Amino acid sequence: MKNISILGSTGSIGTQTLDIVRANDDLNVVAIAAGSNIKKLEEQIREFHPELVCVFNEDAALKLKDAVKDTSVKLVAGMDGLIEAAVYEKAEIVVTAFVGMIGIRPTLEAIKAGKDIALANKETLVTAGHIVMSMAKEYGVKILPVDSEHSAIFQCLNGENSREIDKILLTASGGPFRGRTREQMKNVQVEDALKHPNWSMGQKITIDSATMVNKGLEVIEAKWLFGVGLDDVQVVVQPQSLIHSMVQFKDGAIMAQLGTPDMRLPIQYALYYPERRFLAGERVDFGKIAQITFEDPDPENFRGLALAYQAATVGGSMPTVFNAANEKAVAKFLNRKIGFLDITDIIEYCMSMHKAIPNPTVEQILDIEQWTYELIESRW
Amino acid sequence: MKNISILGSTGSIGTQTLDIVRANDDLNVVAIAAGSNIKKLEEQIREFHPELVCVFNEDAALKLKDAVKDTSVKLVAGMDGLIEAAVYEKAEIVVTAFVGMIGIRPTLEAIKAGKDIALANKETLVTAGHIVMSMAKEYGVKILPVDSEHSAIFQCLNGENSREIDKILLTASGGPFRGRTREQMKNVQVEDALKHPNWSMGQKITIDSATMVNKGLEVIEAKWLFGVGLDDVQVVVQPQSLIHSMVQFKDGAIMAQLGTPDMRLPIQYALYYPERRFLAGERVDFGKIAQITFEDPDPENFRGLALAYQAATVGGSMPTVFNAANEKAVAKFLNRKIGFLDITDIIEYCMSMHKAIPNPTVEQILDIEQWTYELIESRW
Repeated sequence: MKNISILGSTGSIGTQTLDIVRANDDLNVVAIAAGSNIKKLEEQIREFHPELVCVFNEDAALKLKDAVKDTSVKLVAGMDGLIEAAVYEKAEIVVTAFVGMIGIRPTLEAIKAGKDIALANKETLVTAGHIVMSMAKEYGVKILPVDSEHSAIFQCLNGENSREIDKILLTASGGPFRGRTREQMKNVQVEDALKHPNWSMGQKITIDSATMVNKGLEVIEAKWLFGVGLDDVQVVVQPQSLIHSMVQFKDGAIMAQLGTPDMRLPIQYALYYPERRFLAGERVDFGKIAQITFEDPDPENFRGLALAYQAATVGGSMPTVFNAANEKAVAKFLNRKIGFLDITDIIEYCMSMHKAIPNPTVEQILDIEQWTYELIESRW
Repeated sequence: MKNISILGSTGSIGTQTLDIVRANDDLNVVAIAAGSNIKKLEEQIREFHPELVCVFNEDAALKLKDAVKDTSVKLVAGMDGLIEAAVYEKAEIVVTAFVGMIGIRPTLEAIKAGKDIALANKETLVTAGHIVMSMAKEYGVKILPVDSEHSAIFQCLNGENSREIDKILLTASGGPFRGRTREQMKNVQVEDALKHPNWSMGQKITIDSATMVNKGLEVIEAKWLFGVGLDDVQVVVQPQSLIHSMVQFKDGAIMAQLGTPDMRLPIQYALYYPERRFLAGERVDFGKIAQITFEDPDPENFRGLALAYQAATVGGSMPTVFNAANEKAVAKFLNRKIGFLDITDIIEYCMSMHKAIPNPTVEQILDIEQWTYELIESRW
């Protein structure tokens, strides 16, 4: 029996993690945490019987307390509660599926408590990769990627020597606006940007796919996870999302991981690594798919990718500004306060206003996040 | 320093193995063997200084003896000589690159002598897989595939648990006549059949690719090498020969190995396994290749594949008849004695005339080979 804590249990990754738990008798959910969706949390409490539940929003926590007073669940709230769920003693592995930089502190606390991390919260690595990876090494815990791309790379590295990597080929679908110019994306609406061609995901990451900021975050994430240089991560556009990523080795051999677009696969792989369990679902039918196509990315029109490389090249606290500016800008776009192209313009503006600090501490990272948010609020 | 014996040093695989030796200071050729190409053998003796050289053809051996009398090389001939090269004491690994069933006995002797086998002679596994694999286990030697497809599968299984395999996806280019009907292949000439779209290989295997017999042999080879059922090997036509093969696991994940069509990669991989060394050569440029396409195979028009499955399903000595009939028929086609479609017709006829023996011994296999040859000679 493997005991799991899920941070972000009501989101896309969280609910799919629970699908995996539902299908496997030897997985047991001991703790869950979510932002404010207490309706779903109540359902999850009644189905999965976690011992500890954190509602990040304290008002919502109070409402849930009343709703589940007939159960024996322990309810906690706020950042302290989130950390309590992250370090919950019985948990062996923590799925970090909170969206945004809120995931940093709980992730670091979970590592210190010796938990393996099934990492879906890419912002943690993007902003604090230097802290996370050295701490994971120090505490001897595994960082198991849950992103489909990073899971693919992780699978390609199975049984291989990472010193023999030539480069990582990170695949990208190109999003719903692939092939368009900036001019053609000027009047894009929220509804258009939320139509991802292949993947069903949360709103924030779907917008990030449309701007290619997501791929930029993934490049930085790959750099930390696999210990390679930024120049050793190349983005390849593969619109069918069938190849989830590849690794090219020194001998010229390329290992690739393919599959139908199904996030349950990387989630299950992380939960059972290195074991592969049967997973019900559609399989690739090569007779039917007919083709896989490739394109180079277009950083001219999709500034998100170029800005990510720029932020990662500067390093230090610059990726924090890149990420925080994006979080805030995407929220504003989803609330129809700004246009689609404003997202990357805002990121670029914030980066230009920041003088990077090398090796920032968690406190500095969170301060810079706040500074970025305030900078944006003061102008947009 | 790794000492190598190469059986079939003057052929396509043999000379490419020597390319790898030339590029790496820590590989040393101690023994080589070839059929009758003494011109090339002499060059190889003068460049690589093997201690032992076998010329299978005894007349040719005598001629070579005279040509290299100024060197200290020891010359041997015939099947005894081939076996001497296979078990040469100083050799740690034997590259078995002889074409055809002539490779069986030397391969088995090399295994008994504790040598790892870089196996390019697929006929050995096709006809005597049951003997080879159990003997390799008994003597604790590695069977390292040199075929690009089987090397790809082998690489996909790196770090994986073979019990978690769902199926092997063996890729095929479809050869030069892909998409044609039998009617359209009726008047195919030797020159047409020798034009492989992607790979530069020996004559026999190039014809085998055109008939799809090669893919049939590979299906049987994969069954033995990876210990899977025949139904767990599926052929996928992928005309660009960019994906060299794939493995689908129980969770639906597919691992694939890709690369430019370059036999030096699987050869080097086998020689250094599990290490990957730098290999000079072209790399895949995904921006340029634009697409990879897939098709189902066409066993109606390409009978070679259907007959291989049929032979393997019957099992025992039937794959020997399949293989021996093909060897003889291809030789006749190359000598313009029969037409292209006669190749598979001859295989089918021979198989229909044979009552399979379960678990044949090497002697029985060689007797059945002889019987098949004589059957063909008596009618064509």
